[in-house]
Amino acid sequence: MSKLLIVGTVAFDAIETPFGKTDKVLGGAGTYIALSASQFNIESGVVSVVGDDFPQDYLDLLTNRNVNLDGLEIVKGGKTFFWSGRYHNDMNTRDTLDTQLNVLAEFQPVVPDNFKDSEIVMLGNLHPAVQLSVMEQVNNPKLIVLDTMNFWMDSELDLLKQVISKVDVITINDEEARQLSGEYSLVKAARKIRDMGPDYVVIKKGEHGALLFHKEEMFFAPALPLEEVFDPTGAGDTFAGGFVGYLANSRDVSFENMKNAVIYGSNLASFCVEKFGTEKMLDLNKDELDRRLESFKALTQFEINLA
Amino acid sequence: MSKLLIVGTVAFDAIETPFGKTDKVLGGAGTYIALSASQFNIESGVVSVVGDDFPQDYLDLLTNRNVNLDGLEIVKGGKTFFWSGRYHNDMNTRDTLDTQLNVLAEFQPVVPDNFKDSEIVMLGNLHPAVQLSVMEQVNNPKLIVLDTMNFWMDSELDLLKQVISKVDVITINDEEARQLSGEYSLVKAARKIRDMGPDYVVIKKGEHGALLFHKEEMFFAPALPLEEVFDPTGAGDTFAGGFVGYLANSRDVSFENMKNAVIYGSNLASFCVEKFGTEKMLDLNKDELDRRLESFKALTQFEINLA
Repeated sequence: MSKLLIVGTVAFDAIETPFGKTDKVLGGAGTYIALSASQFNIESGVVSVVGDDFPQDYLDLLTNRNVNLDGLEIVKGGKTFFWSGRYHNDMNTRDTLDTQLNVLAEFQPVVPDNFKDSEIVMLGNLHPAVQLSVMEQVNNPKLIVLDTMNFWMDSELDLLKQVISKVDVITINDEEARQLSGEYSLVKAARKIRDMGPDYVVIKKGEHGALLFHKEEMFFAPALPLEEVFDPTGAGDTFAGGFVGYLANSRDVSFENMKNAVIYGSNLASFCVEKFGTEKMLDLNKDELDRRLESFKALTQFEINLA
Repeated sequence: MSKLLIVGTVAFDAIETPFGKTDKVLGGAGTYIALSASQFNIESGVVSVVGDDFPQDYLDLLTNRNVNLDGLEIVKGGKTFFWSGRYHNDMNTRDTLDTQLNVLAEFQPVVPDNFKDSEIVMLGNLHPAVQLSVMEQVNNPKLIVLDTMNFWMDSELDLLKQVISKVDVITINDEEARQLSGEYSLVKAARKIRDMGPDYVVIKKGEHGALLFHKEEMFFAPALPLEEVFDPTGAGDTFAGGFVGYLANSRDVSFENMKNAVIYGSNLASFCVEKFGTEKMLDLNKDELDRRLESFKALTQFEINLA
């Protein structure tokens, strides 16, 4: 089985949307990525940190899905990272209400020995220093995928650029791609970001889908139009988890296969947003996923004859 | 040859974008629709009105492309409809600087006898009373396609709903679909709008592509990501012109063929925005169009194997 190493937050989230609100629930980029990737028949492990306030039940949710937690440090007497946010009516914008780094502030990632030979490494959104440290601990993976956000562009740009220069794929949202590149056109933005290092650039546009760029080629995975979006939290991470999970499972990191991987990422993300937090991802089976893949085909495939 | 009847404004536009500005140039929904549809081997005619200030050169541009102008009234001593607008930096929003209805205020459309048997009727954005009048003058077309905008929802909703109840296809942008239906989800909005009459609903999302809805099915045509968008004016009308032109030429108004038609509409619109006003549409050939169609295929077509 192919090995996937995931580094990312495992956290408590409290979410408000126009449809309701949650108390502290299971969240974090590492969690969403791992839950999404767990739909594939691969060996995945998470490197992260929590406090001893983190419930065993939540850990069991992951290990029951064959997510290896040898790399999850539990800090005695420490408090788990907490994020709270409120979505606006359009569901595309949100305000952060509270961020408590807690144990994340001092996090020193340790990659377990049995994941140092991972074929794929997924660097979820975290401090670039943590991402760099993980890269230094692994042995020549076939593919390193980076997710990051504007927060690190504002606060740690030099370090972030070091990380970007060392990865194969970067996933980033449209506004962040514009900020990082200084280009409004996403075609130009992707080219500038490729010049910073990554051979592949994935620009996430939320409800408007995702674009995959490689050399002068591009591919587009739409988001599936839905009856209702309840909670966008974790959609981007779920997309990334589907992307790397699909690649790890198929053991093919070509551009052609990455097209399938972004479709699969979009497929998984379409489920994530249908319920609050991780709820739908914990209750998702392969049949649903396969059926919805047919919806993606119906949505996008055409047979045109030149006029 | 299949006949396409187009009703829509033929006008002067003055446009400002971050890339520059134009004086009064050729514009109007009817113009863009006709120029776009003229890429197909069909017989198209425009029903509209201008003043005698409208240059013969502009009329020649249309007739040279086999657009029949028997239905274009030229009002002696009248002034042509004029619109002026300024786009914001994001190119997705614009301010209207000036609107002078002029001869449009009293326009009574007359469909020429030789276009009363048109297979397809394209009702471009105009007063719903004008659209109704055109529908009353034609003999049982195979397909009636309506384009409209929020202005008529605000000012003539009852009359607009009469029009909507009589057409087969409506094309409308995302914000307008939300306004018309009272639903935020585009899936729900399309369903409510179908309940008002049209069997097919096309929701235009600008740079984010277009969705085609029919019964419980949907299809998505992306917009082609471009290096640079110079001027979005007329893109929606060019899309509609490509849509009806393709359908008229192929003489097939099935849902399967409408998928191709929205792709072709998106293809044509991708050229429209590359230069100011109608400039690119006047200088576009079939080879370019066919080549770019390959880009649309590369952008969207995938071969996925279930994981």
